[in-house]
Amino acid sequence: MIYKNKADKIVSTEAVSLDEIFAPVKKDLKQVENFFLKWAENASPALKKMATAFFQKPGKLIRPGLLLLAASQLGYRDEKRIAAAAAVEAVHAASLIHDDLIDGSATRRGQQSLALAYGEKFGLLLGDFFFIKSIATSAAAISPASTQLLARVTEKMIEGEAEELAHMMDYSLDEKTYWHIIEYKTASLFETTCLIASELAGASEEDKRALATYGKNLGLAFQVIDDLIDITGSPEETGKPAFSDLREGRLTLPFILARDLAGPRIKRELKRLIEKSTDDRSRLNKLLDFLIKSGALELTYQRAEKLINHSKKSIKNMKETPYRRSLIQMADFVLLRKY
Amino acid sequence: MIYKNKADKIVSTEAVSLDEIFAPVKKDLKQVENFFLKWAENASPALKKMATAFFQKPGKLIRPGLLLLAASQLGYRDEKRIAAAAAVEAVHAASLIHDDLIDGSATRRGQQSLALAYGEKFGLLLGDFFFIKSIATSAAAISPASTQLLARVTEKMIEGEAEELAHMMDYSLDEKTYWHIIEYKTASLFETTCLIASELAGASEEDKRALATYGKNLGLAFQVIDDLIDITGSPEETGKPAFSDLREGRLTLPFILARDLAGPRIKRELKRLIEKSTDDRSRLNKLLDFLIKSGALELTYQRAEKLINHSKKSIKNMKETPYRRSLIQMADFVLLRKY
Repeated sequence: MIYKNKADKIVSTEAVSLDEIFAPVKKDLKQVENFFLKWAENASPALKKMATAFFQKPGKLIRPGLLLLAASQLGYRDEKRIAAAAAVEAVHAASLIHDDLIDGSATRRGQQSLALAYGEKFGLLLGDFFFIKSIATSAAAISPASTQLLARVTEKMIEGEAEELAHMMDYSLDEKTYWHIIEYKTASLFETTCLIASELAGASEEDKRALATYGKNLGLAFQVIDDLIDITGSPEETGKPAFSDLREGRLTLPFILARDLAGPRIKRELKRLIEKSTDDRSRLNKLLDFLIKSGALELTYQRAEKLINHSKKSIKNMKETPYRRSLIQMADFVLLRKY
Repeated sequence: MIYKNKADKIVSTEAVSLDEIFAPVKKDLKQVENFFLKWAENASPALKKMATAFFQKPGKLIRPGLLLLAASQLGYRDEKRIAAAAAVEAVHAASLIHDDLIDGSATRRGQQSLALAYGEKFGLLLGDFFFIKSIATSAAAISPASTQLLARVTEKMIEGEAEELAHMMDYSLDEKTYWHIIEYKTASLFETTCLIASELAGASEEDKRALATYGKNLGLAFQVIDDLIDITGSPEETGKPAFSDLREGRLTLPFILARDLAGPRIKRELKRLIEKSTDDRSRLNKLLDFLIKSGALELTYQRAEKLINHSKKSIKNMKETPYRRSLIQMADFVLLRKY
């Protein structure tokens, strides 16, 4: 794969595993998982089974890990950090569940999606439940400022999702709108995760700004890499079929760049291939070929790399601690991850 | 209609219109409507059109009206009451929208439901948006205590909805579970509406308890009457087809009482009629006949009446004001309403 070779050349950093990155907050993350299970236990009977099933396979826990690292970096070790970490993951979980309903996704994390396993109706309610559980937890046990931040970011994520939906099958989606959508639907939660850590820790304006910039750029890069993985990743690793975005009607950055780089003839051909909504291999192979030859995949990767560099740079003047090292490693992980 | 005659005999109170009931807070309610339109205006483009359409036909505004009456009864006239009234209506709107998705309802308020008009996907997001808008408004502009109350009630409503869904097509649903479900899905918001008014006004424990009891019993009666109207109401007035609950799989109080009152033979026949999920008139007419002859409709009405009496009694020692008069009239309205 041309893109993968290029990628390996561009980035010199060694990929570090999530386990290593989260080692300084490993015990805290375990507490977050227990916090989830307590939520599930206390849910009404009809939601309990689903909530438990969801949290028994808790995913990468990137956002809670990030919150715990940022809080620790700021010297904050109060119990509230556990609830705050759970709260940001709950917003993420809720949006995942509702997104799957919207996209009609059959799989998530390589498993049958909740909607298929329990029915769309329960999926809808479990998403509602996690959205509200996040804020209820914050209102009851974290702080009014965190509650405001959580409510605002949830609103942004819903707005981002709605904008994305409004642009489904929109071949003329421009880059500016793309960035706006991913800022709202993905990056805002990474940014808010850092803002909540700062708020709890009573961080200086400087530290707060540094971490927020780190989080926002990390989140943007996270989504761009997600878009790339959807095209170049192996379904075995990602747990979902290749070109899912396109199949579901989302025009992601690689396609936008390929279109904008192409001359009129290629543009027409590309439009035809993108809009032809069949799953046949030859169409998808042709598209992949276009994306590689036009340089769009490489360019997409470079955008992500630039964001990650910005992200890392923003915290380079913070105190040197194992937590800061992990935050830097996390940025590299986001760029280098294959799933 | 036997039931209607009985009803008219039982209740001696004159029915007062909502316009009259809300007259003391008419200007405030107008401000609440403007508040909604401001929300819609500030929403992202993809949500703006739907949100505007939704609030241009704002419904009965019973919950915000109740909040404004209760707050005024307590002497509270701060601007925050407008935001709080909007917040409780937003929770209600969100749950309506998601309920319609769950029930697959084609109509709401006599109009095409949002899901049909804009697509289920946008409906899902608009519901999410209203849930979060309610709490975001409270967190930013009302009070931490109100935010906690709103988050908790939203959680309860979702749990109630999930319990109801878990009992769809459940012929053996017992009365206790029925009351639990309607307390969570409907009455809790009426109760919380009164609690928020008390919280804002800094009410005495006595006033707070009185209003909370008023709200909870009113909400329970509201749902019981809703269940009755679904059976005896005219589709022209209710804006939805008769027996919608049964068609959608919900066993409501009249059916539960009819079943529990019946002997074994009738019980079997009733079970057969309930479970036979066809829309033919003869089946529905037979069911109506059962409900009337068994006395189940009348008994259901009596339960609602008892709740309404309890509701009115709970505030009878509060200061006599035009607001209290409206609260009493509201209780009668809930009992006597035909749609």
